[in-house]
Formats: sequence, structure tokens, C-alpha cells
Amino acid sequence: MGKYGEDTKLIYELQDQGGELLALRYDLTVPFARYLAMNKITNMKRYHVAKVYRRDNPAMTRGRYREFYQCDFDIAGHFDPMIPDAECLKKVRLGGFLCLSVPQVNDRRILNGVFAVCGVPENKFVPACSTVDKLDKVPWDEVRSEMVGEKGLSPEAADRIGEYVQLHGGLELIERLLQDPKLSQNKLAKEGLGDMKLLFEYLTLFGITGKISFDLSLARGLDYYTGVIFEAVLLQQENEHVEEPVSVGSVAGGGRYDGLVGMFDPKGRKVPCVGVSIGIERIFSILEQRLEASEEKVRTTETQVLVASAQKKLLEERLKLISELWDAGIKAEMLYKKNPKLLNQLQYCEDTGIPLVAIVGEQELKDGVVKLRIVATREEVNVRRESLVEEIRIRTSQC
Amino acid sequence: MGKYGEDTKLIYELQDQGGELLALRYDLTVPFARYLAMNKITNMKRYHVAKVYRRDNPAMTRGRYREFYQCDFDIAGHFDPMIPDAECLKKVRLGGFLCLSVPQVNDRRILNGVFAVCGVPENKFVPACSTVDKLDKVPWDEVRSEMVGEKGLSPEAADRIGEYVQLHGGLELIERLLQDPKLSQNKLAKEGLGDMKLLFEYLTLFGITGKISFDLSLARGLDYYTGVIFEAVLLQQENEHVEEPVSVGSVAGGGRYDGLVGMFDPKGRKVPCVGVSIGIERIFSILEQRLEASEEKVRTTETQVLVASAQKKLLEERLKLISELWDAGIKAEMLYKKNPKLLNQLQYCEDTGIPLVAIVGEQELKDGVVKLRIVATREEVNVRRESLVEEIRIRTSQC
Repeated sequence: MGKYGEDTKLIYELQDQGGELLALRYDLTVPFARYLAMNKITNMKRYHVAKVYRRDNPAMTRGRYREFYQCDFDIAGHFDPMIPDAECLKKVRLGGFLCLSVPQVNDRRILNGVFAVCGVPENKFVPACSTVDKLDKVPWDEVRSEMVGEKGLSPEAADRIGEYVQLHGGLELIERLLQDPKLSQNKLAKEGLGDMKLLFEYLTLFGITGKISFDLSLARGLDYYTGVIFEAVLLQQENEHVEEPVSVGSVAGGGRYDGLVGMFDPKGRKVPCVGVSIGIERIFSILEQRLEASEEKVRTTETQVLVASAQKKLLEERLKLISELWDAGIKAEMLYKKNPKLLNQLQYCEDTGIPLVAIVGEQELKDGVVKLRIVATREEVNVRRESLVEEIRIRTSQC
Repeated sequence: MGKYGEDTKLIYELQDQGGELLALRYDLTVPFARYLAMNKITNMKRYHVAKVYRRDNPAMTRGRYREFYQCDFDIAGHFDPMIPDAECLKKVRLGGFLCLSVPQVNDRRILNGVFAVCGVPENKFVPACSTVDKLDKVPWDEVRSEMVGEKGLSPEAADRIGEYVQLHGGLELIERLLQDPKLSQNKLAKEGLGDMKLLFEYLTLFGITGKISFDLSLARGLDYYTGVIFEAVLLQQENEHVEEPVSVGSVAGGGRYDGLVGMFDPKGRKVPCVGVSIGIERIFSILEQRLEASEEKVRTTETQVLVASAQKKLLEERLKLISELWDAGIKAEMLYKKNPKLLNQLQYCEDTGIPLVAIVGEQELKDGVVKLRIVATREEVNVRRESLVEEIRIRTSQC
């Protein structure tokens, strides 16, 4: 509680159970910070895939649930500037599933510097920030009226903010803002822009600068960010197979939170952290829609081989063989029938994408061999029993 | 609710949140059954590793928490008898971490048959069952007095039960009970014993009969079991390094639950299921105690290679190289310092168990090579930049 700003209302509270007031975890970042503080850890890199809970309105088709998985990657510790930050952005680009989105990056210090030089009083930085954050969904005019109306900024301040927060670009924009007569006079903004320049230099070395946009409208809702912030939002999908463009919002985001661990430490000792959260269900919902559109068949198992029989009364031989394969670490399956038909066994492999079939037959048993069938090519080879594990390993690496 | 018998009191309830009464999941079995029923799935094999919650007294040192992971493996569908059941027992034996325990197996039908032929009225089967279940912790005398006192069985019935439930053995015991003049007259018991015989035949083919004990005192607490039940309990550890014997109770258990899916289906359609749950934290707590006792060093990362530098001012070169390695799918790390000392980088590998170091140096850069150091042997070889990924893959598979 008290770490999520406005979003605190989305926390699921548990009933008082024997004197303890508990709640369901809202994200993986605050628990990570608490873990570091409670265990006095000053240096850690970890990933964590686990469920989090939001008391929110679900939107199933867009992959927005009340109970969902996050995959977090965080680097905690005192390090030289922007090296771990660049790694987080590289990780967001890895995997390749975010090819539709251009990750945006900004820095809370730059944003606060913008507010300061535009004449916003410091106590209005947070509300101004959450209004700016809406610029990816609504046009500037609406954002401006919310600033002046609801948030009580002066029209002049709002106009000045508008000149900055509609900017986006790369290294050349950073250079230009470093020369900006007003912004360059602000200590916070200067620090933020200096680090942003360093970050873009590192991203160039990582080969991903062209794919990441420095965007001054990016604000991120949560209170705990202190430096670099970033977010990968899905753009509209240009795909002839899908009529409706997919819009699932942010699929990955994060930033630097140097103050959060200190809030949990009795002596306030700080551990600087930077990290990224990826929303797995949202990515799955896109992948699923794409797969449905493409009618591609997805392999639903990791099974390497089906242990099958060519004739009746071979259940015992199948059980013996599958046991040998399991003991050797081969991923093997069999149909749970006493006397399955060979055709049904082969069909099962077609349906599930199992690439190999080890067929036990009476003649083969006499000869000390197993017939290995490659499902894709229908090729069949007799393999000596003692070489079967090795043969399956080689064939699997080829599949 | 209403699926866990006496244990229902251990469920964590959520506060009513907007008109919905929710609870935290107690296990993975009931949700699996509900999932099958709601999605009309009649055939499925899956594993699931996830958290469950018990409003219970935690015992940290024994790996008993209120929030903990279970790893479940279940097979659902109409199949020929005992084939999936045998696979579940084989899976419990796999992995090798349960070498201290001898899995016990029994069948609810045999137990109910025993109660019937001993003169227990049917409405007292469930309480009698939960009393029998205590036989692994307390001697027969105490179990007997609970039966006669609390549960209201006649002393004669209790004595007759005692003759059966203290039996344990293998195939020969099953054969003997199949000839038992009373038990062989009971339909349920006969069915259960017939299936138990089949199960032991399959376990023989799987090569694990000698390692599994048919134990008539095994009852398992939960109401939903309908056939075979099994449990792996840790025996006392005979280890000179550890003074106190480890006792963490049951680490894996399960059984057949043919009625549970039907309870969730509006038309009561049944999907027979058999499955096993493994308590991961309990196994971890044993492994940790053993590791502490043995003072073995554990590798805490999967990192294949550390990207290091031999001189100062090589941060950019390190970033370039690590980016290449990441893009090729190599698990690589670097220290987040501009100018780390080579000795510190090598020490980091010693501490974390990273087996390889790719060292960037001025001369090597000129020559188009990277120095690859094998941490264990301190051997160093110059590898051409374009062959580095392949070389790391080969070396990793050898480590």
C-alpha cells in the first residue's frame, strides 16, 4: 500500500484472517524492492514470471485480465550509469515478439525539468505528469484542456509544455534539447538528457537505436520512477488477413526506481534499480489472433517420440520401451490403450506435431530393433534397440 | 468450496470485492477439474507449476508455508485401466530427488472394502478413513482408541480393521488379499485389488516395483479420491553430516479422482482423472539442508560466458560483443562497470560458476580474435570473432 499512487484502489484486499490484513500482489516490482530491503541485498539481477492481481475491469479479447502473469527483469545495485538501463531496453527488443511496436523511452527528470521551465509549481508535477501520459491516446487539445481545467495549470504553462511533450526522435533531438536555452539551465533536465545521450550511445552499440524512440510525452503512471522510463505499445497491425487492427495497449514497460528499496529499509539505505515488466497474456492474445488468421498449425507438445505398436498384445513391450526412453531423458508419450490401431497412433502424431514414432512390432522384437518413423517424411528406419536413444536425439535436433 | 472436506477451513477467503466472493486457490487439482468441465475437455495430460494457499500454521524450517508452489501432473480421459496411473507413479520416481522416500500406494476401494467387511457402517467410512491416515505418525493403539472413542466404531470392528491396515508389501500381499475369504467377497475391494495387481505388473515393466510399497494404512485426507492413492513420505535421513534427521512429511501425493469433473459439469458428465502433486518447497528445503551439510558449491546462474576486458576503455567493445552473443542466443553477462579489473571479472566467474570468459583486449581486437578462457582449467585460446558463438556452444556442452 502507498506505493502505487492512484492505482492503489486496484489492489485486491484479503479478509482479515486471524489478525492479519493481507492483499494480493499488484505487481512484481514493489515485492522485489521489499525483498531486497528485508534481506539486505545490494546487488542482484533476476527475472521473475508470476501472477499479479488488479481489481480492474477485464477485457478478455484484448488480453486484459484481473489475474494475469507478468514477466519482470530487474537489475539492482550501484553501477556505472546507463549500462543496466541499456540492457533492460535490449531485453525488451529480444525475443522478436514486439516487432509491431517501437519502444518509447523518456526520463522522469527530463519531464520534471520541462514542467519546471514551463512554470509549473512543484506540487503539480505529479498531476501534470499523469495528464501528459494520456497523449498516446488523445490529441494534444484534450490533454491541454485537462491541464488547464482539472489540474489548474495556467494556459501559458500548458502551451509551453505542449511545445516540448509533442517532440520525439533520437540522438539529434537529445543534442538539440541539450542546447535548448531554457531546458539546459535546469539541473534535473540536464542530468536526464546527459544520461539519455549515454543511453542512446549504448543502444547504438547494441544495434537497436533506430528501433527506439525518445518521446517526451511518455510519463508512465506509477509514482516510484526516478529516471529513465520506457514502454512498448502495440501499433495498429497492418495485416491483410486481419480486418480489425489489434490494439492491446502497453505490452512492456519499466524504468529506473532508485528510491523504492530505501522506502522499505529501516535506515532508508538506497539500492538503485532498473527493470522491465512484460505482460505475457497480452502478447499471447496477439500471437493467438495472428495464428488464427494465418491458419498455421501450432505444435502443442514438446514430446519427441510416440511409442507405438504395430500389432495387438504389445502393451507390455510399449511400457518397457517408454520406460527406457523416460529413464534416458527422452520426452516420450504413448496412447493409454491396450491395443491401439497403428493408424490412430500415427494420426495422433499428425494432430499434435510429435515428429517421431518408435514402433514396436513382433518381427522387430525378434530382430532386436525398433522401427523409427519420421512423421514429416513418412520415412522408416530400423534402429537397433541399444542405439535408439542416440538416434532419437540426433533426429530431434534435425526436426 | 465443498471439495476439500475437513480442510475447507484452510481456504483463504477474499473480501467481497464489488459483489463477488472470491478465495485463493487451495490446490491445483480442483481448479483443473473445473477447467475441464467448463471447457468440455474430455482428454488431457498436463503439468502445472503454480502457487497455492493454505490458512495454516507455517513451519519455515520444514518447508511448510502458507503460500507455496505445487507441481501437478494429471492425466484426464477414458483409458484402459491403470496405464495412466502407472505413469503417475513412474513420474514421482523420476527426477531422483525422492531417493529417501519409498512411495506408498493404496486404493480407496480396498480401504472401503476393508471397512465394510470389518462391520463399519457406510456413513462412518470417511471418519474411519481419516483416522487410519494417522498410522504413519502415531502407533496403532492410539489410532484404535480414536476409532472407538471419537469415531464411535465398535472395539471388534476396530480390531478387525487393525489386522488389515497394518499390512504392507508388494505383489505377494495383493495375491494373498485376493484370496482373503472376507475381502474377496467384497465387490469394491476385489475391483481395487484386481487393479492394484495390474498396477504392480505395469510398475514391474517400468522397473520400479521394488521401490514402491502397497500399504493398507495409506488413506489421504481429501474426499475426492475414488481409486488408487499414493504418497511419497520422507523417511528419516541417515547422514553422518546432519545430526537431526530431516522430517518434512509428505513431499508428493495423489491418486484417482473420477468424480470431481462431473461435480462441475451441469449435466454431471464424468471425466476420469489421475494425478500427482509435488510440494516443491519441501523438496528444496531438504536439498538446501543437504547442500549446507556437504558444503558443495551451487551454480546460481545459467550464464554460459562472461564478457570481460583486459584493459581500460573497452566498455564499448564489451557492449558490442555481448550484443552479438545475445542476438545469437548465448547466455552472456558482463560487469556493469566502465573499467572493471580483469581479476575482479575472473573472480566473479569463480563465485557464480560461469564456466567461460570471453576477454576483449587491444591486441586481440587488432587481430580479429577474442580470448576465450575456460574457468575450471584456466586454459586460454584465441578464437576468431566469427567462430566465437560456435566455440562457446561446443565448450558449454562439454562443461
